[in-house]
Amino acid sequence: MTKKKGFCGVIAPVLTPFGEDGSPDTERFVAHCRWLIDEGCTALAPFGTTSEGNSLGLDERMELLEALIDDGIKPDRLMPGTGACALSDAVVLTRHAVDLGCGGVLMLPPFYYKAPSEEGLMRFFADMIEGVGDERLRVYLYHIPPVAQVGFPLALIGRLIERFPNTVVGLKDSSGDWSNTAAILEAHPGFEVFPGSELFLLQGLRKGAAGCISATCNVSAAAIRGVYDNWTRPDADALQAKITALRKAVQAFPMIPTLKALLAHYRDDPGWARVRPPFVALSEAEAQEAVRTLAEGHGLRLAFAQNGRSAALAG
Amino acid sequence: MTKKKGFCGVIAPVLTPFGEDGSPDTERFVAHCRWLIDEGCTALAPFGTTSEGNSLGLDERMELLEALIDDGIKPDRLMPGTGACALSDAVVLTRHAVDLGCGGVLMLPPFYYKAPSEEGLMRFFADMIEGVGDERLRVYLYHIPPVAQVGFPLALIGRLIERFPNTVVGLKDSSGDWSNTAAILEAHPGFEVFPGSELFLLQGLRKGAAGCISATCNVSAAAIRGVYDNWTRPDADALQAKITALRKAVQAFPMIPTLKALLAHYRDDPGWARVRPPFVALSEAEAQEAVRTLAEGHGLRLAFAQNGRSAALAG
Repeated sequence: MTKKKGFCGVIAPVLTPFGEDGSPDTERFVAHCRWLIDEGCTALAPFGTTSEGNSLGLDERMELLEALIDDGIKPDRLMPGTGACALSDAVVLTRHAVDLGCGGVLMLPPFYYKAPSEEGLMRFFADMIEGVGDERLRVYLYHIPPVAQVGFPLALIGRLIERFPNTVVGLKDSSGDWSNTAAILEAHPGFEVFPGSELFLLQGLRKGAAGCISATCNVSAAAIRGVYDNWTRPDADALQAKITALRKAVQAFPMIPTLKALLAHYRDDPGWARVRPPFVALSEAEAQEAVRTLAEGHGLRLAFAQNGRSAALAG
Repeated sequence: MTKKKGFCGVIAPVLTPFGEDGSPDTERFVAHCRWLIDEGCTALAPFGTTSEGNSLGLDERMELLEALIDDGIKPDRLMPGTGACALSDAVVLTRHAVDLGCGGVLMLPPFYYKAPSEEGLMRFFADMIEGVGDERLRVYLYHIPPVAQVGFPLALIGRLIERFPNTVVGLKDSSGDWSNTAAILEAHPGFEVFPGSELFLLQGLRKGAAGCISATCNVSAAAIRGVYDNWTRPDADALQAKITALRKAVQAFPMIPTLKALLAHYRDDPGWARVRPPFVALSEAEAQEAVRTLAEGHGLRLAFAQNGRSAALAG
């Protein structure tokens, strides 16, 4: 693994399990995070889009984060999502993460008002960073225009890096647009850029990306880690082709309910399939179809030891 | 004024003033709400889009609402915005409003995830209503696709009314699409529909709308109320033409910063101009241009008595 100051490698935006009453299930959450690390995730990004992070209340996010750290997961491997529409909420969540020693935070722009000015977004981040007022803070910008609609144009990224060079240190690019990722990498060498999908992992690494932060790491971290660890070897393209094919097969299904259905199936734990509205869980038939398609077509099978951790490492 | 069970008339989505430190300014807020009622607003909708409602934290919204009621504003005239991306937050805000006796709540759909299924939105509202679990709850759906992106299709409105006939009682239509407003009015007689702009006030009233909920009520409630009170009179079209012209002139400027600049100018209180990022206040020159254009072209001048209330009524 390349030595870097900040984050690098294969980062999972962790799925959030819910209990029967709809509240976050801390026990299942911690076990899943442990398993992801055993499977090869170099770090975890709870409360992202895949985590239904914006469907969680502030207290819920903070309690889950504390549970991970109480369980012994090192906070420098955690990059929680702390973005919010309200500056005051973003400050509360970010300060909490910094106080717990988290290695960084993944921050959405305020996403309610559309087409904000560059200056308005600049002020939001400046006020947030100054409001937290802690030199330990490391911000990773979360660029996901297909969902948030509001994103980080290249000029804004440049202004943020220039004004806060020791704080604004990276970006997750979930635009799905490789030319955008490439433009950021070219403009800002050393900036820690993570494509938001393993589809761009190998070409990203070849251009200086730090790794990837991808929803599918929740079910296929080991294979994605294989590309990360071997990207300079001759068979790297063949490894990438396999994770590309699997990713495309997964994303043909509704992403979040499908990932949860896979965990429910392989853990033999139907409760894992629960989602918060506005999502709807897959039907039994849809879940079976997803399991079968991904197992038969791509060999996707998840294995868990009795303690819920990785069978491979625990065995 | 037509007698109706719920809300009707001219409702202001109240602007939220901020202090020097960026926190909501309760004193200015209460004084503004008092003035709006004196000017002719039949009710107030704090924490809407114009209020920068989603730029406020949960505690901030709840404290401002309590301050209004503590000051003696009748809660049955209040329709606070209680929507949130997280169901748990929506339940907390809504229960708080119901416990305070608010006449209704104006609820956005969860707006982070785009293109949610009808079933997913149905479940969000069902879980919210059942989570609050109070028969006093009256929900007004907040349809504002230009901003929230997620809206209420006609079929979903029908399902919500059918399942919760005593709870889901109305809708604010800020689509800007009169044909949508007309379709809702035709499909659901008795449902309290408020166009989100006074541009559609007169044609709305003629088709059974309950009034309007409009940003510009923050500066021109009296004229809008004039149309509401006189809509069956022969000069109604001439009155409507005046408020239409003013509205079009206001919306040629950036709406929220401009409304705040107008209040700052006429109250001689520069602090009123403050906005939260991602908004940016008008420059001095832009503010002067807005004041001049609206005063010279449309006779817009705001008058306040020394106590901050309506000069006309206080004098």
